Amino acid sequence: MTQKWVYHFGDGQADGEASMKNLLGGKGANLAEMSSLGLPVPSGFTVTTEVCTYYTQNDKAYPETLKEEVAQAVKAIETHMGAQFGDPDNPLLVSVRSGARVSMPGMMDTVLNLGLNDKTVEGLASQSKDERFAWDSYRRFIQMYADVVMGMSHHDFETILDDHKDRLGHENDTDVTATQWKEIVAEYKDLVEQDLRRPFPDDVQEQLWGAIGAVFGSWQIPRAVTYRRLNAIPEEWGTAVNIQAMVFGNMGEDCSTGVAFTRDPSTGENYFYGEYLVNAQGEDVVAGIRTPQSLTLKGREREGGDLPSMEENMPAVFAQLAEVRLKLENHYKEMQDIEFTVQQNKLYMLQTRTGKRTAAAALKIAVDMVNEGMISQDEALLRIDANALDQLLHPTLDPKSAREVLGKGLPASPGAASGQLVFTADEAETRAKNEEDVILARTETSPEDIHGMHAARGILTSRGGMTSHAAVVARGMGRACVAGAGGLQIDAQSKTLTAQGQILKEGDIVTIDGSTGEIMKGAVPTLPPQMSGEFEIIMSWADEARRMKVRTNAETPDDAQKAIEFGAEGVGLCRTEHMFFDPERIQKVREMIFAEDKAGRDEALAHLLPAQRSDFEQLFTIMQGLPVTVRLLDPPLHEFLPHDDKDVQNFAQNAGLDEALVKRRLSELSESNPMLGHRGCRLGLTYPEIYAMQARAILEAALVTQAHTEIMIPLIVSRKEFKILKDVIDQEAQKVFEEQGKSVEYLVGTMIEIPRAALMADDIAKEAQFFSFGTNDLTQTTLGMSRDDSGSFLPDYVSKGVFGIDPFVSLDQEGVGQLVEIAVERGSKTRPDLKLGICGEHGGDPASIDFCERVGLDYVSCSPFRVPIARLAAAQASIRHQKCVEKKTSKAA
Amino acid sequence: MTQKWVYHFGDGQADGEASMKNLLGGKGANLAEMSSLGLPVPSGFTVTTEVCTYYTQNDKAYPETLKEEVAQAVKAIETHMGAQFGDPDNPLLVSVRSGARVSMPGMMDTVLNLGLNDKTVEGLASQSKDERFAWDSYRRFIQMYADVVMGMSHHDFETILDDHKDRLGHENDTDVTATQWKEIVAEYKDLVEQDLRRPFPDDVQEQLWGAIGAVFGSWQIPRAVTYRRLNAIPEEWGTAVNIQAMVFGNMGEDCSTGVAFTRDPSTGENYFYGEYLVNAQGEDVVAGIRTPQSLTLKGREREGGDLPSMEENMPAVFAQLAEVRLKLENHYKEMQDIEFTVQQNKLYMLQTRTGKRTAAAALKIAVDMVNEGMISQDEALLRIDANALDQLLHPTLDPKSAREVLGKGLPASPGAASGQLVFTADEAETRAKNEEDVILARTETSPEDIHGMHAARGILTSRGGMTSHAAVVARGMGRACVAGAGGLQIDAQSKTLTAQGQILKEGDIVTIDGSTGEIMKGAVPTLPPQMSGEFEIIMSWADEARRMKVRTNAETPDDAQKAIEFGAEGVGLCRTEHMFFDPERIQKVREMIFAEDKAGRDEALAHLLPAQRSDFEQLFTIMQGLPVTVRLLDPPLHEFLPHDDKDVQNFAQNAGLDEALVKRRLSELSESNPMLGHRGCRLGLTYPEIYAMQARAILEAALVTQAHTEIMIPLIVSRKEFKILKDVIDQEAQKVFEEQGKSVEYLVGTMIEIPRAALMADDIAKEAQFFSFGTNDLTQTTLGMSRDDSGSFLPDYVSKGVFGIDPFVSLDQEGVGQLVEIAVERGSKTRPDLKLGICGEHGGDPASIDFCERVGLDYVSCSPFRVPIARLAAAQASIRHQKCVEKKTSKAA
Repeated sequence: MTQKWVYHFGDGQADGEASMKNLLGGKGANLAEMSSLGLPVPSGFTVTTEVCTYYTQNDKAYPETLKEEVAQAVKAIETHMGAQFGDPDNPLLVSVRSGARVSMPGMMDTVLNLGLNDKTVEGLASQSKDERFAWDSYRRFIQMYADVVMGMSHHDFETILDDHKDRLGHENDTDVTATQWKEIVAEYKDLVEQDLRRPFPDDVQEQLWGAIGAVFGSWQIPRAVTYRRLNAIPEEWGTAVNIQAMVFGNMGEDCSTGVAFTRDPSTGENYFYGEYLVNAQGEDVVAGIRTPQSLTLKGREREGGDLPSMEENMPAVFAQLAEVRLKLENHYKEMQDIEFTVQQNKLYMLQTRTGKRTAAAALKIAVDMVNEGMISQDEALLRIDANALDQLLHPTLDPKSAREVLGKGLPASPGAASGQLVFTADEAETRAKNEEDVILARTETSPEDIHGMHAARGILTSRGGMTSHAAVVARGMGRACVAGAGGLQIDAQSKTLTAQGQILKEGDIVTIDGSTGEIMKGAVPTLPPQMSGEFEIIMSWADEARRMKVRTNAETPDDAQKAIEFGAEGVGLCRTEHMFFDPERIQKVREMIFAEDKAGRDEALAHLLPAQRSDFEQLFTIMQGLPVTVRLLDPPLHEFLPHDDKDVQNFAQNAGLDEALVKRRLSELSESNPMLGHRGCRLGLTYPEIYAMQARAILEAALVTQAHTEIMIPLIVSRKEFKILKDVIDQEAQKVFEEQGKSVEYLVGTMIEIPRAALMADDIAKEAQFFSFGTNDLTQTTLGMSRDDSGSFLPDYVSKGVFGIDPFVSLDQEGVGQLVEIAVERGSKTRPDLKLGICGEHGGDPASIDFCERVGLDYVSCSPFRVPIARLAAAQASIRHQKCVEKKTSKAA
Repeated sequence: MTQKWVYHFGDGQADGEASMKNLLGGKGANLAEMSSLGLPVPSGFTVTTEVCTYYTQNDKAYPETLKEEVAQAVKAIETHMGAQFGDPDNPLLVSVRSGARVSMPGMMDTVLNLGLNDKTVEGLASQSKDERFAWDSYRRFIQMYADVVMGMSHHDFETILDDHKDRLGHENDTDVTATQWKEIVAEYKDLVEQDLRRPFPDDVQEQLWGAIGAVFGSWQIPRAVTYRRLNAIPEEWGTAVNIQAMVFGNMGEDCSTGVAFTRDPSTGENYFYGEYLVNAQGEDVVAGIRTPQSLTLKGREREGGDLPSMEENMPAVFAQLAEVRLKLENHYKEMQDIEFTVQQNKLYMLQTRTGKRTAAAALKIAVDMVNEGMISQDEALLRIDANALDQLLHPTLDPKSAREVLGKGLPASPGAASGQLVFTADEAETRAKNEEDVILARTETSPEDIHGMHAARGILTSRGGMTSHAAVVARGMGRACVAGAGGLQIDAQSKTLTAQGQILKEGDIVTIDGSTGEIMKGAVPTLPPQMSGEFEIIMSWADEARRMKVRTNAETPDDAQKAIEFGAEGVGLCRTEHMFFDPERIQKVREMIFAEDKAGRDEALAHLLPAQRSDFEQLFTIMQGLPVTVRLLDPPLHEFLPHDDKDVQNFAQNAGLDEALVKRRLSELSESNPMLGHRGCRLGLTYPEIYAMQARAILEAALVTQAHTEIMIPLIVSRKEFKILKDVIDQEAQKVFEEQGKSVEYLVGTMIEIPRAALMADDIAKEAQFFSFGTNDLTQTTLGMSRDDSGSFLPDYVSKGVFGIDPFVSLDQEGVGQLVEIAVERGSKTRPDLKLGICGEHGGDPASIDFCERVGLDYVSCSPFRVPIARLAAAQASIRHQKCVEKKTSKAA
């Protein structure tokens, strides 16, 4: 059987369905689904993502049978629409659109009105009985096709149009007459021929194949590659191409086009939220060139628009659309983002997809849909992008603070942000690299600005709506955004922002509030984030659903307190060396390092003991009996040493040491590869007195606070090594308990962060009472890549698809993951009650947390601000791997 | 059943046997075996090595039942000897000796004549009818016991003895009378009481248990620990203790003691080689204090001794000993090193063990024994310590060169060596660390000197025989040694060597010839080593027996040529970057690194291409069609860069670059952990043109020479990464073949040197045609230990038993080995004809080679000088793992 490359949809039936996103892309799969649902979808077909892969791998060639399949599919549209592709009398026009597995807003390109040439344009004129419309469509087609397929700049075409309009005294495009459009079309075609030394293609088949190739080719353009890298989308997914009969929202005042969300994507409120433009093509809404009108009366009231809403303007079609809204939500049981066009009072659905939303909206929609009986609690939990919770944890403006408001726009992406005003994406990136907070101001944004948006704290535009590029992208990134602030003049040329007569320059500080739409002069004080009621509900559902505990990586009282507030159930990693960097202590730490012998070290350690003990007492008190894993000294000693000459001089003087000696010792302690050097338990092995002091500080503090402590030895590679150091701890514990005449329980366990430790886990577990996976170091050693040095090559590794995602951000499950699995399996075999956790950065990454659930860890540990994310991600993982839940009852942490 | 801690031997029977070395130690097992063979062994018993382990692990406590078992065993000796331990009238005296699983010459301590006190000495006097002998024995006992058990310096006792002798005008110990010995004994005992504030123990049970504890305790003394580290002996083996009835070689002129080898340990010649001393105790021979006499007439003739041989002096006992020699060799089918004592014309055997020998002797003995029909070829191969072949590969003196001979000693360990004269082990070590060649000169050596002997190129002593400490240890280490050069005055105090009226000082250059015994002034030119006939025979047998191929790591024509002479069957690792360091090329390499873009890099690479091509042509020509594995550029780029200011200035000037720019780029290229940084195939991924140039150079050279090339990509972690780079190579190959209108076969494979590569081997093998294990890097990453930085902690790891041996010297089989096994298994599953080799340093280490055989590699690759070692080790491994041999026919490399 030959492979099927093309899938038809329309006329109430379809070859595909919504579940076939991998093959048809999101847009194609949902067009098929809507068609099967009986919704009014213009007839069309989808060329599969497999063709994209074939095209990329075979030097831009197509599968043999594709030509024939496409020809058949075009015929099917012709039959349904009663028009012929290329027919001078009654021409079929099509749109050609990309559609990848997941939505990539604005990344991929679209061609509309394809099938027009000097002959068919006349057919369109006579069929539509509107010559002006026909020639306007033709010029739009030429401009779009020349830009997307032929690689010309749309700017040059706009110049021609602007010149004409200036000359004719027209303000709007709608003022241009048919005859004038004809002249402009002629000039457009001349411009193409001049620039490219070949004519604009008249042949409609050539047009069609050119557009298909351009969509597939655009999968590889830099902005698509950047977007995939930022969003962890594998290159091999590819895009599909959707070819669909054109319908026109710009055929007159009984036409319109719009986009809508079935609920408010910003707050989650259950009301029909959307925008439309009368007598316009869809691209006009998305591009934000005209500021659109509200869909509903309620929306118009809220946003204060001057022009009538669709509900008022086209009540019949609106009612039909409102019905579609309910039908789609009931069918998909999910908030939908839809695109529609009204041609001569007839509604056509052009797209439906799961709507992007703010984290707050996601929570509200999920909770509401459970209350409405649409979905279950578990489904609600799975609906929320755990990573997006981060947005809720951002600061808001202090309502009591004074503010000088410069203007107002749409509240496009929540959160408040202050920073230096910049006018280009490059400048935003440059200043952000220097640790400066910036606000990127643009008339409107485009995919070329993505790197600057990523670098900025907030984004501000003077044009475009809630669904404009700026708004959609900013929400996805969790950046604050105020869009369409029409009262502001943003001039990138002169690098000024003019508002209410004031002129702000590059570098001036402004504040934006993405939740209200306000733009303010200067930095306005902020308040810490407030959790909504839905947040608490979701968290409580998550806590019910999850098997794994969530701990935090913290050593300061502030961090520990914050983590407790976020629901942490213990400390998974307290890094004792962070306590050594205190200015008063560092001198003693250095003296310890420079000591000639054990006696000298002991003396310096005696000074450090009370300080460490008091740190632990504070931490243990905050943690109120929750388990606390304390890692003994880990980094190479030279990290503690003075670096510049002045430091060296000061230290030597204070310690009463010869400066030359200090310098010699410094050079002795420097290492070629400190990551693989004398650090971690290797220090404990050569200087057991350091670990003995730390064990004493921990246990003396534990005796006072009745803390539940787990002492963790880093960098272990063998059982014997672990045993030697466990003995040091146990002996010191014995001493402390004898001195004080009382004792406290404690565990001694190890990090698993070196491949050998994972491989020898069965043996190590004979002595170790718990394992904590240090996946930062385990990633470094398993991949042979230093996190500090990988900046020079890792981006290439991600962009060339060697890694789907930076392995320091999300665990390399197929590589490093094998070692984690090996260690879990072997360790648990030796010691069935072995406690298992993860304390690398991956402990706060949802994909990695899912992996942890799958291999059966008992807890994850992450930074305080990621605790809520981890709680939700752990719940999602539990739900996905139901079978593991049985473990919950048999093995309590 | 309770564990048995004590094993009896003597009176023609024994509880143990030779195969029980692990439990009884070598000495104890062989005493049992000799006893069962009916040889005259003084009655005794062995306390097992398990007691040592118990003692070490239980804070110097003994198993409960040990006391009783020892008491029973002493009773058995008493019954057999007809004397009572501690009986004032007829006292039983015993020796207490250590005995580990393998011989550790001079490492462990011995106590003789135990059981003497002020009362039993009288019994010994009356029983032996020799009061002088009895008191001499007593003073020997006190001195030995005080030294070994009580921790005093034997030097203090010698001072007392020397004072007496001076005062009495005695030259030899034998001149001291019984009365005088009594006085000396009294002074000895006073000295003990003064020094230790407790009396010398009178109670014989206290003496016995003190000695047993001292033997077990001595397992942990630093010199034992050092020896174990140098000889890869695990700490957990422990030592046994042998308690045996005393026999006396110092009861008069009809007494003697000696050591012998059943064949000549230096040349392997089949003649009875040994030394003896009349009227002496065994320790006198080993310590080298008196220069001993030859055992045989032939020996006396060869060595020119003045005193009669045992064959002449005690013909009847000698005949009996000669019979024992044949009986032992026939029984063990191995050359034996024996110790004996003659008490009043009665022969007693005190020890037999496999005799240490030079590599040349090992070869000759093995070949001879095959010819004599004693052993098979395979057994012969297994007999030879592959590592020891190194000795045969050392240079000899050029016979034509002029030499100024300063003196002559015994040819104690073969090979010629020149170097600076030093007089202490510490100085030897210090100068060796500065890359200086040294010759260590000592009156006699002791275990405290081991580190200096290891550091020296050669060892020279003025006292002691062929079995002295210096001789035995030097042979074991493969160091040249001239021993017992009595004509030389070696004065460690004044740091001078006086010979024939000339005074040489520390730092003066001397040459020694360990094969002739000559000592020469200045550096005498040497000739490359000559292979003996036996060497060729053994190598040919090895080649017959082995399954694995042996290749070499080489890139220079000299190294390649040398390797071919040593029998290499290809190049397993040609490091292309070594070719970049040539002064003429480094400027271009640097220009390539500093190039702003691909065009700049291409230009610099175009200059490097002809140079690389010509290198490869030379190498391929030498290798005459044998396979050559060429590794593409591997180290981080900054290794090639100028380091000091002057270098930077010169480079910038020559390249026409701004110095500031060069400095900025230098700092950009520096890395915190270069081992884990931008190197290996990561360079190839970011700069494919470098790998393309190298592929071109290799293939253009291969076309000229018809070489069989294997192009190897380093540092691979995934299939995709490998595929991207393989495509670069294949595309360049296609270009080269098209340009030249002809082609040549080549393979593209990968190093497996990162844990992830081993784990993903099944996937990587889909693209890679061969795997070569880079176990240097694989050890670094799997253990998280940098070879460069591990000096500060690895010695502790070895001495504390975390590693049995430095994992960079011999493969960490239980850790790193797992990854090798995983990669072999998974890679071969994907690609059954996957070629498998090893090219890390471990490829020349016999234990690691054994591992390679076990996991089924096709070849090992090592440095040229280790090729013969690898050939033999591979054969030994094949023989040990016979079942793998079947693979040989089915899978030819």
